[in-house]
Amino acid sequence: MAEVKLFGARVSPFSCRIEVALKLKGVEYEFIDEDLHKKSPLLLKYNPVHKKVPVLVHNGKPICESLVILEYIDETWEEGPSLLPKDPYERAMVRFWAKFLDEKCLPPMWKACWSIGEEQEKAKEESTELLKFLEGKFSGKKFFGGDNIGMVDIVANFISYWFIIVQELVGLQVLTKEKFPKLGEWIDEYLNSDIIKENFPPRDKLTAIFQARFEAAAAAGGGGGGGSGGGASK
Amino acid sequence: MAEVKLFGARVSPFSCRIEVALKLKGVEYEFIDEDLHKKSPLLLKYNPVHKKVPVLVHNGKPICESLVILEYIDETWEEGPSLLPKDPYERAMVRFWAKFLDEKCLPPMWKACWSIGEEQEKAKEESTELLKFLEGKFSGKKFFGGDNIGMVDIVANFISYWFIIVQELVGLQVLTKEKFPKLGEWIDEYLNSDIIKENFPPRDKLTAIFQARFEAAAAAGGGGGGGSGGGASK
Repeated sequence: MAEVKLFGARVSPFSCRIEVALKLKGVEYEFIDEDLHKKSPLLLKYNPVHKKVPVLVHNGKPICESLVILEYIDETWEEGPSLLPKDPYERAMVRFWAKFLDEKCLPPMWKACWSIGEEQEKAKEESTELLKFLEGKFSGKKFFGGDNIGMVDIVANFISYWFIIVQELVGLQVLTKEKFPKLGEWIDEYLNSDIIKENFPPRDKLTAIFQARFEAAAAAGGGGGGGSGGGASK
Repeated sequence: MAEVKLFGARVSPFSCRIEVALKLKGVEYEFIDEDLHKKSPLLLKYNPVHKKVPVLVHNGKPICESLVILEYIDETWEEGPSLLPKDPYERAMVRFWAKFLDEKCLPPMWKACWSIGEEQEKAKEESTELLKFLEGKFSGKKFFGGDNIGMVDIVANFISYWFIIVQELVGLQVLTKEKFPKLGEWIDEYLNSDIIKENFPPRDKLTAIFQARFEAAAAAGGGGGGGSGGGASK
């Protein structure tokens, strides 16, 4: 029995957050790849409230919700690289931007990918306005976390990879290097780091999944579908 | 110039969270009571992303989002009573339930108050299911935080006071002592503690505000209105 288990899904950006954090910290873990269309009784037992991946189980005790898990990992395995800074104000800023990404950015960005017509136009505009705040966050450092990958980078992995893939697939031009040069540089830097290259799901696999979903949505009259970035996860 | 300023609104449960936390910690602060229908330029400068109260400004640096502010207060003024426990797993549980309250409970509970017909019935059912999770959280202790008021109690102040007032006003029977005896006991205990009695807005004032809003909504065809618990705050 491994001490650390992660109930996740390889294609989920939320699950992937936890894998990246555990790898950064050098924590060994057992990965349980959940079928999001047929979740295991253990997952439902560990996360009766949300019934979603990821769930981290440490010494038999479950922790749910990816932002909560990331802080838990940082506080439990202190010896590895820090996901959050030590200074209370800087920690507050990390929490603010992580929350901003999940609660403000993700819903309209995903809607921009999966809706059509006026709804899509509105979601594209909203996404653009929100991305401007992120673009303004960079000040000469490689990552949101400074010189090293931190919690905000990890939380933003949806933007750097999942969104870019779906944007390309459906022909959107929301997050481009021309419009957001600093975010563009960050994405290159982030995706080229070893930890990300080794742990993100293959691009062709994600593309195939979203291509199938997009075709199904189009066949059903366009729009809809999607969930949030690779199935029921949080 | 005070070192600690709170841009808030006396009637907002979100703003009230911060006042309770600062009072518990014994931190002196200047309170700026914002008119939520005409927000000050300073508030908009300090919180350009959400444009909402509460905003805590400490030594000139702003912190937004009440959950983020609560953690900041706990980490900055360590000498006072702790809002979060020290153990990483228990801290994760506090963060989980705080997030649960804000993201899962609050929207349907507020919708149950301000909607009508089928939408209201659905919101009532959903609220009831969610409250069952909270009811199951108590195990012989007075507060969510154990023997003392902690972050979850503070975050749940919407439920203990604002919701109860509006529920009574509009004639709902969602959160009652018969259905949720442990939550009922917690509400009594919480509202009777000195820190809450001294810092919550007067019941008749809140009742008058919501009465006016309810009448306006009814005149406009029922439902709607509301925002989230006392205006634009978070």
